Amino acid sequence: MAKQALILAGGAGTRLWPISRALYPKQLLKLFGNKTLIQHTFSRLKKILPPQNIFIITNPTFKEDVFLQLKDLGLVKENILIEPAQKNTAPAIAFATQKIMEKDKEAIILTSPVDHFIKPDSEFIKDAKIAFRSATKNFLVTFGIKPTSASSEYGYIGLKLGRAERPIKKISAFEVKRFTEKPDPQEAQQLISEGYLWNSGTFVWKGKTIMAEIKKYIPRVYRALKSPRLFNKLNPVSIDRGVLEFSKKVRIVPATFEWQDIGSWKTLYQILPKNSARNILNEKVLELDCHNCLIQGTQNRLVAAIGLDNLVVVDTEDAVLVSHLDKTHQIKGLLEKMKLNNAPQYLKHPTVSRPWGSYTVIEEGDNFKVKKVLVKPKEKLSLQLHNKRSEHWVVLKGMAKVELDKSTIYLSAHQSIDIPIGIKHRLENPNKDFLEIIEVQSGKYLGEDDITRIKDKYQRLEI
Amino acid sequence: MAKQALILAGGAGTRLWPISRALYPKQLLKLFGNKTLIQHTFSRLKKILPPQNIFIITNPTFKEDVFLQLKDLGLVKENILIEPAQKNTAPAIAFATQKIMEKDKEAIILTSPVDHFIKPDSEFIKDAKIAFRSATKNFLVTFGIKPTSASSEYGYIGLKLGRAERPIKKISAFEVKRFTEKPDPQEAQQLISEGYLWNSGTFVWKGKTIMAEIKKYIPRVYRALKSPRLFNKLNPVSIDRGVLEFSKKVRIVPATFEWQDIGSWKTLYQILPKNSARNILNEKVLELDCHNCLIQGTQNRLVAAIGLDNLVVVDTEDAVLVSHLDKTHQIKGLLEKMKLNNAPQYLKHPTVSRPWGSYTVIEEGDNFKVKKVLVKPKEKLSLQLHNKRSEHWVVLKGMAKVELDKSTIYLSAHQSIDIPIGIKHRLENPNKDFLEIIEVQSGKYLGEDDITRIKDKYQRLEI
Repeated sequence: MAKQALILAGGAGTRLWPISRALYPKQLLKLFGNKTLIQHTFSRLKKILPPQNIFIITNPTFKEDVFLQLKDLGLVKENILIEPAQKNTAPAIAFATQKIMEKDKEAIILTSPVDHFIKPDSEFIKDAKIAFRSATKNFLVTFGIKPTSASSEYGYIGLKLGRAERPIKKISAFEVKRFTEKPDPQEAQQLISEGYLWNSGTFVWKGKTIMAEIKKYIPRVYRALKSPRLFNKLNPVSIDRGVLEFSKKVRIVPATFEWQDIGSWKTLYQILPKNSARNILNEKVLELDCHNCLIQGTQNRLVAAIGLDNLVVVDTEDAVLVSHLDKTHQIKGLLEKMKLNNAPQYLKHPTVSRPWGSYTVIEEGDNFKVKKVLVKPKEKLSLQLHNKRSEHWVVLKGMAKVELDKSTIYLSAHQSIDIPIGIKHRLENPNKDFLEIIEVQSGKYLGEDDITRIKDKYQRLEI
Repeated sequence: MAKQALILAGGAGTRLWPISRALYPKQLLKLFGNKTLIQHTFSRLKKILPPQNIFIITNPTFKEDVFLQLKDLGLVKENILIEPAQKNTAPAIAFATQKIMEKDKEAIILTSPVDHFIKPDSEFIKDAKIAFRSATKNFLVTFGIKPTSASSEYGYIGLKLGRAERPIKKISAFEVKRFTEKPDPQEAQQLISEGYLWNSGTFVWKGKTIMAEIKKYIPRVYRALKSPRLFNKLNPVSIDRGVLEFSKKVRIVPATFEWQDIGSWKTLYQILPKNSARNILNEKVLELDCHNCLIQGTQNRLVAAIGLDNLVVVDTEDAVLVSHLDKTHQIKGLLEKMKLNNAPQYLKHPTVSRPWGSYTVIEEGDNFKVKKVLVKPKEKLSLQLHNKRSEHWVVLKGMAKVELDKSTIYLSAHQSIDIPIGIKHRLENPNKDFLEIIEVQSGKYLGEDDITRIKDKYQRLEI
C-alpha cells in the first residue's frame, strides 16, 4: 500500500490569455518564482513521495512539454498518462486511477490540480500526512480552505464538529455536514458565516475507494473506462459534482497552508508582490501615475502606461490584453470570438520554446513560412527530414554545423544552404555563443507535424 | 503682389506617440479621412491658391516623405524649404518668409500649422479672403477661434469692437484689445467670459510686414538669418511670444470654421466619430463592456479590451500606449525616458513606407539586419549600390526581377541571390501580385544612408 500522486494537467487554462494559449496552457508557464506551475506542483509532491510515484494526466498536445519541464525533476516518462478525451475531472481521475492501480492495486493517491498556489510547502506536507492517515480508513479526504471572499467559483463544505461546537485547533479530518457546489454570492456569504470551508480540489483517497464511489454515483463514467468510444461520448463532469457532493465518505482536513486557485489575472495579481503604489510591473513597462495595476510587457516591445487604476495590461508578441482587474474573467467571451475568427492568437504564441532553443514564426503565407531559429550553445536539433517541405537557412549570427545527407557543412554569418524535401538533415550549434538563423520554408504543407525524427538528443521520437 | 502659402511642418509631434515617432511625426500620418495631416493642409490651401505658390518648411529628416506625400497634389520640389535648425515658429517663419520673398518680394503669405483640423473648407476659404484683404493694409491677421474650454495651451485675444459693443455677426478683421499667451485656467475662464478668442496659429500677412515686425521685436532672429552659426545659437521662440503679443498691427478675423489643434490623443478622440458606447475602435480590437475609449490595434496583432472607461489604447508593431484619456499629455515624460534609454521605439517604426512598397526590420544585431521587403505590383526600387554591406535575398511570394551588375535574373518563391558589396543592383516586381522577400544584410555598417542611387523612378537621388 504505497503513496502515489496524480497531477491533473489536462486543462487549457485560457483564462490567463494572452500568456496562456489553447496550445500552451498556464501549467507550462512561469507565473511566479523560477518554476512553471507544473514544476511547482511536482516539486511540492516530491517532498512527500518519490518522483517515480508521481503521475501526470494530460492530453497529447501538452505531453512533450510536460516531459521536457519535469524530466530533470525526476518524472518517469511512462508516468505521463494521456486522457482519451477532455471530459473534466471525474473521467480523468477515473482513467488515471485505474492506470495507477494496474501498477499498485493498493495505492493511496493524492490527486492534485496543477494550478494552485500553495505556501509554505511545510504546512502542506503536515496536512497531507493527516489526509493520508484518514484515507487509509477508506475516506475521500479533501483539504478545507478558509474562504477569503463570497466567491461563486468554489464548493463550500460544512464540518460536523461533534456534539459540542468547538473551534478547529487540533487539525484532524472532520466529517462533512453539507457540501454545496458553487453557491450564489448571497448563499456563499451565509455559508461563510456558518464556518463553511472551500473545497481545495486536492484529494487523498485509496484508488479502491474512489473507484467504488465513481461506480456508485457516476456509473456511466465507470463503464466508459472499458470503451474509448463511450469515453468520447461522455458528458463532462467534475469529481466534485459527480462524487463529492453525494458520497458519505468525504472527510475534511482544514488546511493550515495559504492557498489560491490561479484562475484569473485577478487572483495572480493578489498573490504577486507589489510595489508601494500596489503595482506589479516588469522591465518592459514605462509608467507614470498608475496604481493597483498588473502591467507586464514583453521582449522587443514596450508598454507605456499613464494614469491607470485597477487595470491589467498584459502584452505579448502578437496580442495585448487591457482589462479592468475585476472583469478579467470576461476574457472567455473574447476567446470564443477569436476561435470563431480563427485568430492565431487563440491557439499559440509566435515564439515556441524547444529544448535546444526556440523558434519564432515571423511570417506565414500560402506555401511559405519564415522562422527565426535560435539554437543554444552546444545544442542540436534532431536528425530529421520533412516529406512535404524544403527549407532555406541563412545564418545571422554564430556558427552553424549542418549535417545534410552524408556531408557536414559549416556556415558562418550570411552564408546560406538549401535543404531539399526528403533529405535527412540536422542543425547544430558547435560554439559557445548563440546561433541565430532565418529559416524559409517552402511547400504545400507546412505543419509542425511534418517531421520524421531519426535521432534526437531529447528523446522526442514522436511529435 | 501674389498670394503665397507657407506650411510649418518641422515639428516632431511626439505627443501622438506611439503612432508618431521622432523620425515620423504626426504630419505624415493619416489620423482621419484618407489623407495625412500634411495632405489635408495642402489640399485646403490649394483651394485658395495654385500649388506652385505653396511652400513647406520642414527639416532634412522629413523632406523625402513630405515630397512623396505631396508631389501628386502638385507640390514643387523647390518649394520645400529646410530650416537650418529647429528653433520654434518665429525663426522658421522668418527664414521661410525671406526665401519666399526672394521669389516674390510683394508676397502676401498665409502661414499655417500642419496639424490643425479645420472643417468645412468652404468656411475657411471665406474667412481667408477677408484675412488676405486686411493683410494688404499691412496688418498681421490671425483667425480667432471661439474657445471650447479654459485651456492653458493657447493664446487668448480680446477684440476691440468699437465704441458700442456689438455681437460679431458680420465677419471682418477686428483690432486687438489685448493678447494673452497661455494664461492659467482661472485667468483663461475669465478671458472667455469677456469674449476673448483663441489665436488659431494660422496667419495672413505681407512678407514685408512680418519681417519688419520681426526686426523690430526680435532683432536677434532677424540678424540670425544672415548667419547659420547665429541661427544655430538662437533660443527657440514662437511667433506669438516673439511678435504677436507686442505688435500693434495684429487684426483678428473671427473664424466661422470648426477648429481643433491635434495636439494629443484627447483632441483626436474629440474629433473622430464614435459608436453608441462613445468608443472609437478599429478592426484589430476585440472589446467587451468598454465606454468612452479610443482603442486602436495594428496589423498582425490583436487588442483585447474589457471593462475600460475613458482610456486610450494605441497598439503598434513594437509598443503599446495605455493611458487615461485626460492624462495623455504626460507622454512627454515617458518619451524623455525612452530617449535616455535609447529605446528604438522613441525614434521610428519597424515598418517604413516607401513609394515602391514598404520594409519591416525584423531583427537587428551586431553586423546583421533582417528585413521583410514588400514590393507593390509593377514597382521597382532604385538602381543602387551599397559600399559597406552585402545583401542576401530570399523570395517568399511573387516574382522578383533582379538586375545585378550587367545581368538580369528572375527569382520565384524560395529562390535566393547574393548581392555583394559595391555591386549595382535593382529589385523589381514585374507581376500583378505583391512581391515579398526576406533581406539579410551583412556588414560592419548597416545604416539606411549607405545607399548610392544611380537611377530612381521616384527621383530620390539624395537620401
